[in-house]
Amino acid sequence: MREVAIIGAGETKYGEHWDKSLRDLVVEAGLKAVEDANITADDVQAIFGGNMSAGSFVGQDHVGALIADFAGVADKKIPAMRIESACASGAAALHAGYMAIASGMYDIVLVGGVEKMTDLPGDMVTDILAGAADREWEVFLGATFPALAAMMARRYMHEFGMTKEQMALFPVIAHKHGALNPDAHFQREITVDAVLKAPMVADPLTIMNCSPVSDGSAAVVLTSADMARKYTDSPIKISASAFANEYISLHSRESLIRSVSTIEAGRKAYKMAKKEPKDIDLVEIHDAFSIIAIEGIEDLGFAKKGEAWKLAEEGQLNLDGSLPYNPSGGLKAKGHPVGATGVGQVVEIVKQLRNEAGKRQVDGAEVGLAHNVGGTMTSSIVHILEVM
Amino acid sequence: MREVAIIGAGETKYGEHWDKSLRDLVVEAGLKAVEDANITADDVQAIFGGNMSAGSFVGQDHVGALIADFAGVADKKIPAMRIESACASGAAALHAGYMAIASGMYDIVLVGGVEKMTDLPGDMVTDILAGAADREWEVFLGATFPALAAMMARRYMHEFGMTKEQMALFPVIAHKHGALNPDAHFQREITVDAVLKAPMVADPLTIMNCSPVSDGSAAVVLTSADMARKYTDSPIKISASAFANEYISLHSRESLIRSVSTIEAGRKAYKMAKKEPKDIDLVEIHDAFSIIAIEGIEDLGFAKKGEAWKLAEEGQLNLDGSLPYNPSGGLKAKGHPVGATGVGQVVEIVKQLRNEAGKRQVDGAEVGLAHNVGGTMTSSIVHILEVM
Repeated sequence: MREVAIIGAGETKYGEHWDKSLRDLVVEAGLKAVEDANITADDVQAIFGGNMSAGSFVGQDHVGALIADFAGVADKKIPAMRIESACASGAAALHAGYMAIASGMYDIVLVGGVEKMTDLPGDMVTDILAGAADREWEVFLGATFPALAAMMARRYMHEFGMTKEQMALFPVIAHKHGALNPDAHFQREITVDAVLKAPMVADPLTIMNCSPVSDGSAAVVLTSADMARKYTDSPIKISASAFANEYISLHSRESLIRSVSTIEAGRKAYKMAKKEPKDIDLVEIHDAFSIIAIEGIEDLGFAKKGEAWKLAEEGQLNLDGSLPYNPSGGLKAKGHPVGATGVGQVVEIVKQLRNEAGKRQVDGAEVGLAHNVGGTMTSSIVHILEVM
Repeated sequence: MREVAIIGAGETKYGEHWDKSLRDLVVEAGLKAVEDANITADDVQAIFGGNMSAGSFVGQDHVGALIADFAGVADKKIPAMRIESACASGAAALHAGYMAIASGMYDIVLVGGVEKMTDLPGDMVTDILAGAADREWEVFLGATFPALAAMMARRYMHEFGMTKEQMALFPVIAHKHGALNPDAHFQREITVDAVLKAPMVADPLTIMNCSPVSDGSAAVVLTSADMARKYTDSPIKISASAFANEYISLHSRESLIRSVSTIEAGRKAYKMAKKEPKDIDLVEIHDAFSIIAIEGIEDLGFAKKGEAWKLAEEGQLNLDGSLPYNPSGGLKAKGHPVGATGVGQVVEIVKQLRNEAGKRQVDGAEVGLAHNVGGTMTSSIVHILEVM
């Protein structure tokens, strides 16, 4: 297999884009990535587009073809396909793009992620997102996604005695970092008290434990590691791209307090990159709900089971801590346009490793890890990136 | 790149499966392919699932995870993702699976395709399928998919003087072959007169020029060519996997009478496989509408532009002709469960090349070509398979 590098990265602001359509968003991010790679769109040989539900959100399937057309490369007749793995669609597209370069089939590929979610009322959005769970055995019986996450949180709190105050530290840190990110959906700090007093969505999760509904897009340009310096002085190597799935329904699992897909994707990624948790300088963790981030941090080996909240309490997750956590603001503050999220996490790590992250820069960052999850931690995808 | 081979193939009957859900269909096809490959599901290292619109048809996204779970391999924690390229989703999944083996990232992968379309009323199905076109610039202005295909047919007939009678030969041949396929949606012959007198959908296309709405699933198991004989005595090599896109909207194109994406995918495929049209022993051509098959046959180099109907009239497209056409029955008679179609075409070619196609067997078939299209020939994917 050829080694793979990122030579360009770009994204839109995340938020409610009333004035931009799906195609506007993905073209904006894609062209930023292309420009950043010092290539033109005509150099792109294939497109992999991460998207969860454009068919349901905006009535548009065939998203790969749409991207190729509106990015202005239809006359180049290149392949373009959409990749879907629920909220992990972005990282799944990156995994597919990684194989496209590693195989030698294509030399330069564009990996994009996009979701346009705010054109529908909230109850319809919630129903569409529930399609990431088992429609027949979870959703038809009344579960929404926040309700499923709340069951995970309740069990976790029962096992380990974590309090709502301790859980609230995670969105507080995410917002502290998001306040420094001009592309974040929410650029303001919040307090533990604000999290606890926010409207309850599914006990114990208030709305401040839940990521928002966002529009947005992110993109990266990949090539082989040995060709990367032809295009840029600061290529970033993808040292690992690892993907694992487990049972789609909560009720099929042995445990609600750990994610076997995250454990497996992490194990494979560390092995592939020849790294250990202590080698990681910063992380972008999937915090669609606070409990998912907490289990993710533990299951990736950054804290003992039941103790992730201690890292938060000790300040280790701050930008100057031992494990800078979601410097972008994470899904909670940067936003969660589901198909874009996994690519956007990687865009943030690229910026950090290039020392281009502005006010939220993590000093001396050389190795970063991105953790993107689909469903109730059903699919987990881990990428490890490093300076080369 | 490693060479890639198919070691197992399986599919469900295509048709209206009132008693089977999406997951039932895909698991049936997947397990048939696994059994045919002389492996167990536990040997599968990754799953690529072609599906166009399960989110809209049955409210289920995260289709890769669902397949892995209900195929019984959730405890293996393997990657599983969905690939979408409208009606070419099946072949797009095969293209992704091809790269997964070619890269060396995985050694055995399952490529499945599935669509469950008959749970909704026809007008809703038509609207969902229109998501393969440009929703904002074609569909919002009133176009349906049959209407777009009808515009292609009208222009073609205007340019070349092809009659409705001549166009009707294509569904007639498809049904003649489908009548020999026990897995086909429609297993009966039709006449030119029946095509002409059938209800008009979009002039000049009657309902007999249009493929049906079908449920179904198909799957193949891939490994590297050098490992293939460990599993089977009759591996089939994938000599080419080529994918091209063009403008998504008809109104953006220079011509309605040829498909530049099919021309390009064919060119790349012939080059990759070191074959010419004359080397192909049989074809599965995408006949979602008769006009699409006609342009496909010509654009792949099997007939001069404007003359595909002559092949039909001369009997060259029959099972004993020079270019056996859609021996499975094609999309028109075998059926068109959109996400499954591209994989199902390849399943048919595998059966033919193994001399296992029963009453519809093409004598001495050693090289076959599958042509799968998304949208109004927006994306075209060509696979060439051969006996190894």
